[in-house]
Amino acid sequence: MNAPTPAQHLQRPVPPAMLAALRAAFGERCNTALSVREQHGRGESVYDAAPPEAVVFCESNEDVMTVVRLAAAHGVPVIPYGTGTSLEGHLLAVQGGVSIDLSRMNRVLRLNAEDLTVTVQAGVTREQLNREIRDSGLFFPIDPGANASLGGMAATRASGTNAVRYGTMRENVLGLTVITASGELMHTGTRAKKSSAGYDLTRLFVGSEGTLGVMTEITLKLYPLPEAVSAAICHFPSIDAAVQTTIQTIQMGVPIARCELLDANAIRAVNLHSKLGLREAPMLLMEFHGSEAGVQEQAETVQALAAEHGGEAFQWAKTPEERTRLWTARHQAYFAALQLRPGCRCQSSDTCVPISRLAESINESVAEAEASGIPYWIVGHVGDGNFHLSYLMDPNDAAEAAKVEELNVRMVRRALRLEGTCTGEHGVGLHKMGYLLEEAGAPAVAAMRAIKQALDPQNIMNPGKVFALQPV
Amino acid sequence: MNAPTPAQHLQRPVPPAMLAALRAAFGERCNTALSVREQHGRGESVYDAAPPEAVVFCESNEDVMTVVRLAAAHGVPVIPYGTGTSLEGHLLAVQGGVSIDLSRMNRVLRLNAEDLTVTVQAGVTREQLNREIRDSGLFFPIDPGANASLGGMAATRASGTNAVRYGTMRENVLGLTVITASGELMHTGTRAKKSSAGYDLTRLFVGSEGTLGVMTEITLKLYPLPEAVSAAICHFPSIDAAVQTTIQTIQMGVPIARCELLDANAIRAVNLHSKLGLREAPMLLMEFHGSEAGVQEQAETVQALAAEHGGEAFQWAKTPEERTRLWTARHQAYFAALQLRPGCRCQSSDTCVPISRLAESINESVAEAEASGIPYWIVGHVGDGNFHLSYLMDPNDAAEAAKVEELNVRMVRRALRLEGTCTGEHGVGLHKMGYLLEEAGAPAVAAMRAIKQALDPQNIMNPGKVFALQPV
Repeated sequence: MNAPTPAQHLQRPVPPAMLAALRAAFGERCNTALSVREQHGRGESVYDAAPPEAVVFCESNEDVMTVVRLAAAHGVPVIPYGTGTSLEGHLLAVQGGVSIDLSRMNRVLRLNAEDLTVTVQAGVTREQLNREIRDSGLFFPIDPGANASLGGMAATRASGTNAVRYGTMRENVLGLTVITASGELMHTGTRAKKSSAGYDLTRLFVGSEGTLGVMTEITLKLYPLPEAVSAAICHFPSIDAAVQTTIQTIQMGVPIARCELLDANAIRAVNLHSKLGLREAPMLLMEFHGSEAGVQEQAETVQALAAEHGGEAFQWAKTPEERTRLWTARHQAYFAALQLRPGCRCQSSDTCVPISRLAESINESVAEAEASGIPYWIVGHVGDGNFHLSYLMDPNDAAEAAKVEELNVRMVRRALRLEGTCTGEHGVGLHKMGYLLEEAGAPAVAAMRAIKQALDPQNIMNPGKVFALQPV
Repeated sequence: MNAPTPAQHLQRPVPPAMLAALRAAFGERCNTALSVREQHGRGESVYDAAPPEAVVFCESNEDVMTVVRLAAAHGVPVIPYGTGTSLEGHLLAVQGGVSIDLSRMNRVLRLNAEDLTVTVQAGVTREQLNREIRDSGLFFPIDPGANASLGGMAATRASGTNAVRYGTMRENVLGLTVITASGELMHTGTRAKKSSAGYDLTRLFVGSEGTLGVMTEITLKLYPLPEAVSAAICHFPSIDAAVQTTIQTIQMGVPIARCELLDANAIRAVNLHSKLGLREAPMLLMEFHGSEAGVQEQAETVQALAAEHGGEAFQWAKTPEERTRLWTARHQAYFAALQLRPGCRCQSSDTCVPISRLAESINESVAEAEASGIPYWIVGHVGDGNFHLSYLMDPNDAAEAAKVEELNVRMVRRALRLEGTCTGEHGVGLHKMGYLLEEAGAPAVAAMRAIKQALDPQNIMNPGKVFALQPV
């Protein structure tokens, strides 16, 4: 499936002089092999690759500054790359240009356990971070499933399974080092927990999808490992029953740490992939964090709510190993599901609504998915009002692709009607530009455009994403 | 004390035609009486009033649009006004212009208890909001002490006593209605708890101090009233002992809801004002929220930590009335302290540092304050690493004013050296513009300037605040 190619996607070729300068500066770290370029010009979206002309493997802020300054001098796009797990086409070089691979900027620069903060390079992945800080008694909770880089997670304002309790990247990034569109190094934020000092540049860059600058270092909040953790699964007679239980849990203020919905299709996928042997019926996978007494209290409250909706007795994952097995299976749902339909691509849509509207948001979408006859599966960070409906589509069947897109439109418009958002955590990328305009409205998109033009006047930072630079 | 008057503060008079248009549109709601103008051109800062030329009492979005469109047509500044409790000179009409009084936009527009959200007009105060939603079982926790308007609190990214548990305005504003510098109505955010849809305009406007647009409506997160609340006071042999207890409480992850330091001077003030009869020794005033068992567990943990540092046995405020009496006294500390030195003005400085640096930040500042001989008092939202040192200065004594400013500079530079911020919650206003530049650095301030120029090209939105429009 090709990416959309509106008029704004004019190619901006890398001039030979710039390529020569990159090669002189980076040697073999400037790579123009097709396979490398193709790998860097896609992601996990349904789109075919739109490869950059070169990939530069950066190892320092100075490296990134060198690439950006050359790009600025030649008016050539740059696209930051972390682990390539984007779902919405963020990495496609739709106007050509150079991919800035940050995966070698993978050092945990500074752990301040006494302040519950850590500063990392953008290429550090969330799993690596938690491995490296394990001995501190602290952890970083944000967990979008994929072992994404923290730079990529900041760029898309990622969240995932723990966000219901610990917030998203929005709440957990304290400060940034950014290479600006002119190749200058800029710091935002401090290590203080709060500040009223000037515009909140940190949160402007978090979620900007590489379109305002390249984030190279990130200071994050950490949390003490809870004294007690317990995970449970609970089967329900219907998706609606699971969702109603979730809604009441949130409304009561239970500080549940994870509250994940899996439909029967998702369970079938993870059963096949991870040999879990779970019953293929709608299920909540939950985790509780706190003191021993606190965890028990939370679980009893939610069990009582579940029972009111026909939920079964909780099955507990008591050991860390059992919990890891369950969560690993949950995180592999995406790849597991791909195996349900050989040769398929997965078109995953991601909406988020106010918690009281979640049942309507999910139930109507499920009914449409069922009626479509196209294989689908559902998982959701339902405690946040966020869920993902993913279609397993034949990439060579244009009619099916069109049908899936139509179902997506209906699902997104439903979320907007319910006062929600077109993307809870995947970002806008290429795919949701039209939806962003519907959601935010013309004045807000005009403000975003003005900010983009002010900070990146040549439009070289990941151009062609999030919104059209000219009003459409 | 006069506000600083650099070259950028050229007066921009309201042309007669604009004044006539305002009078035609608003009648008596356009007020040019000197007393009204002076009241709108100050705040609680040490600065003398710099009155606007007119005050317009707006009652709707359309009213605000009318004023801003006239201001845009005539290149005249506008300054939003809520309750006038700014501490850093935000309200001074340093370039002249029109004050937009939002206090009559005081309706709670929409309570969605089932989603834990509420939408209010900007002039609603935090106490009014909590009164109006009392029957819902929910509350809005952000509490900067003053009964400020929620518009003003959003504008300064306010926080206060509950922020250690519930976050600041940064974490608790979901969306905004903004009248832009061209007089257009813009919405930001949705009622969904999280979103990855485009630039985070909501958080760009939160903390922008009226310099990017006028916030007229605010959608906020609410929280279920805790099942149990208990408040306690604990006296310590020294400020350091109280601070060390706080640091360990935070490092252990105790979800304490409020953790306030009062020094002996602050206690003396509130004793005099509120007849509390508290012993005049360093004290923590704490509050715990949760289930009955959870609250007890938290309190026991903190009591044990306090005892290690020589803290006395907690004295409990068991009834809601006792708690209200304590917190009201705490909130009146500012006015109480003014009575300690008749005719004085209070110069309050506000820094925030990473929690492990708090002792150094406070202890050195206390030593300097003691040595100065100028009356001072200290309160602090110490759980956040945030504290306020306030000098009671003679406004007619230039030497004393200079000495206080020198002490402020030292305190702020100390906070910056300790990786903190020049303002935890009061904002930059006029007073901290130089400190912001030191803290954020030239590239970040240049980015703020570019954003300001993009969104307010005529520089009519509260001009002359936060940073200089031309690099200095």
